[in-house]
Amino acid sequence: MIPTPYYLIDEARLLENMHKIARLRELSGAKALLALKCFATWGAFDAMKPHMDGTTSSSLFELRLGREKFGGETHAYSVAWSDGEIDEAISYADKIIFNSLSQLDRFADKASHIEIGLRLNPRFSTSGFDLADPARPFSRLGEWDIARLEAALPRISGVMIHYNCENRDFDLFDQQLTRIESEFGDFLRKLKWVSLGGGIHFTGEGYPLEKLAARLRAFSERLGVQVYLEPGEASITQSTTLEVSVLDIVDNGKKVAIVDSSIEAHMLDLLIYRETAKLPQEGDYPYQVAGKTCLAGDIFGEARFAAPLQVGDRISVQDAAGYTMVKKNWFNGVNMPAIAIRRADGNGTVELIREFTYEDYASSLS
Amino acid sequence: MIPTPYYLIDEARLLENMHKIARLRELSGAKALLALKCFATWGAFDAMKPHMDGTTSSSLFELRLGREKFGGETHAYSVAWSDGEIDEAISYADKIIFNSLSQLDRFADKASHIEIGLRLNPRFSTSGFDLADPARPFSRLGEWDIARLEAALPRISGVMIHYNCENRDFDLFDQQLTRIESEFGDFLRKLKWVSLGGGIHFTGEGYPLEKLAARLRAFSERLGVQVYLEPGEASITQSTTLEVSVLDIVDNGKKVAIVDSSIEAHMLDLLIYRETAKLPQEGDYPYQVAGKTCLAGDIFGEARFAAPLQVGDRISVQDAAGYTMVKKNWFNGVNMPAIAIRRADGNGTVELIREFTYEDYASSLS
Repeated sequence: MIPTPYYLIDEARLLENMHKIARLRELSGAKALLALKCFATWGAFDAMKPHMDGTTSSSLFELRLGREKFGGETHAYSVAWSDGEIDEAISYADKIIFNSLSQLDRFADKASHIEIGLRLNPRFSTSGFDLADPARPFSRLGEWDIARLEAALPRISGVMIHYNCENRDFDLFDQQLTRIESEFGDFLRKLKWVSLGGGIHFTGEGYPLEKLAARLRAFSERLGVQVYLEPGEASITQSTTLEVSVLDIVDNGKKVAIVDSSIEAHMLDLLIYRETAKLPQEGDYPYQVAGKTCLAGDIFGEARFAAPLQVGDRISVQDAAGYTMVKKNWFNGVNMPAIAIRRADGNGTVELIREFTYEDYASSLS
Repeated sequence: MIPTPYYLIDEARLLENMHKIARLRELSGAKALLALKCFATWGAFDAMKPHMDGTTSSSLFELRLGREKFGGETHAYSVAWSDGEIDEAISYADKIIFNSLSQLDRFADKASHIEIGLRLNPRFSTSGFDLADPARPFSRLGEWDIARLEAALPRISGVMIHYNCENRDFDLFDQQLTRIESEFGDFLRKLKWVSLGGGIHFTGEGYPLEKLAARLRAFSERLGVQVYLEPGEASITQSTTLEVSVLDIVDNGKKVAIVDSSIEAHMLDLLIYRETAKLPQEGDYPYQVAGKTCLAGDIFGEARFAAPLQVGDRISVQDAAGYTMVKKNWFNGVNMPAIAIRRADGNGTVELIREFTYEDYASSLS
């Protein structure tokens, strides 16, 4: 039995998402690139490669990982490239997408032998959280002024527009895409490709995949562009659990089960966005599930169990793939979760692909 | 010139804190242990060891680091120890402090050859932020019921009370300590030692160190206990900068300088607690300084400069030692800052003690 804590990626569930992505590509003609900023656990890439067109990135290291470990089309995006990394970046990339006209001016000559794009910020988004809203006031993410976009034109063949965030609402997506057609259509017609970024939750339960496909195809045909999507969370949603063990149970007015993990160290977005982990909710025995760091608010959330919890019991935290492994850290020196994959080989073989040790912790600090 | 980004620890400034700590120890009789959860960059420990009594920890890995790299008294605390790590923990520790009576019940026999303590939660604190408030409702951090504390008595020789959080106010500290004496004094008299934890900002500018020393000595004498303090931030405050470079300047209604770092990846508490980095504030040229990740809210803060910024200019983010290096992570695959120390050897030699590479990034994921 693998010692907790560990992230457990279920290849069969990952493949369910992959099949939806493959179907969307087929129906819509859009290409799909894995957004490595969300999920970059390359031990799982073999199961994903056949169903996606490649990767997109947000830094030089992600870009290189995508090129070396995933292959296919490799899009390079970064909010800002440095002089010292641009040559290496271009050597890995099929397309490089600049965030600003000034970055394009600085580096376009170097990249003239590959496709070049620019980030277009439509000045609206589906994000309800200012932290994650690319359309927030004074946003540094992309260009929106038509004159500036036109100034880029001779040098670029496409744009990336990232404005969705966990958007489960097809009608909203449809309306906002219509707004993009109306506000930027004349400009987009001059291009060869448009990436609509990530954040469309099209692999979720009940999402109207066929409607999305038809809408993307219409967009593509109307403007004469190749459409790209950059699914991050949609690629890996519901595929992974964080497996933890109960270390202690305390009762200071409420039963709290302390487990061998931490939201800050292992599922950071729960803390940043003040969200609650997906925990068991069936049974007559309620507990708050909390982490083992010194942080008073290191709380996964409220859960219910069929029987009273005991020290040593294991709990599976659901939906633990997106923005977790890529953000894990050594806060409090808490043991970093190992990474394991349940292979879809019919035997349910669980392969431990990475464990972390004291030496990893110590060497992270000097 | 060391490439940015990097954390730069200034040994001379670190030593200013160390001298205040040494003076407080001398005047008060209290012992001071470095809280590794805040700062564990062991390349800087040689400068700190002569001025402190040892370390305290919040996990097995921190405990081992304290024992192996710092030495002196080594306190072991964890919100919850596991069966699998307790023997190793005890092998490193001079004192082990359990968070709950149930953990004490579970492990006290194993630890009977070293000093044992329990965490006492006084049910009040100086924290104004629920996330960091150990006295929040249903807090899992420590015991407060007198009957339960008494039940621990034959087995423990001391308690740890951690209830301050960046407390710069001596009068508040004084009042709360009086409250502890009044509410828990009869119990504390039965012990040999009391740790008052961390969070007292006594190395800060203008803090009345002598008053604190006298107050600690009075507490110690009144109750007949050895006092411990566990300075984290107080040990390293103002000692370190994060050195970054400007990669791009954009103006979407406000001039934004994008730098080769990120609050989420490199100074995480700015994001979690919605704080602003300490940036230059002199001059006629205002800029927002922002990170290079995809996060819309990756903003260090507002700054002013004496001249217009140019791509390639360097900026020092002040006060970047506490809870930064211990929480850094690979979000967006952004290059992790190297760690450098300016030695207090009279020559100002800057020694690069750790650099991070693509291989470190890739191996963090599988």
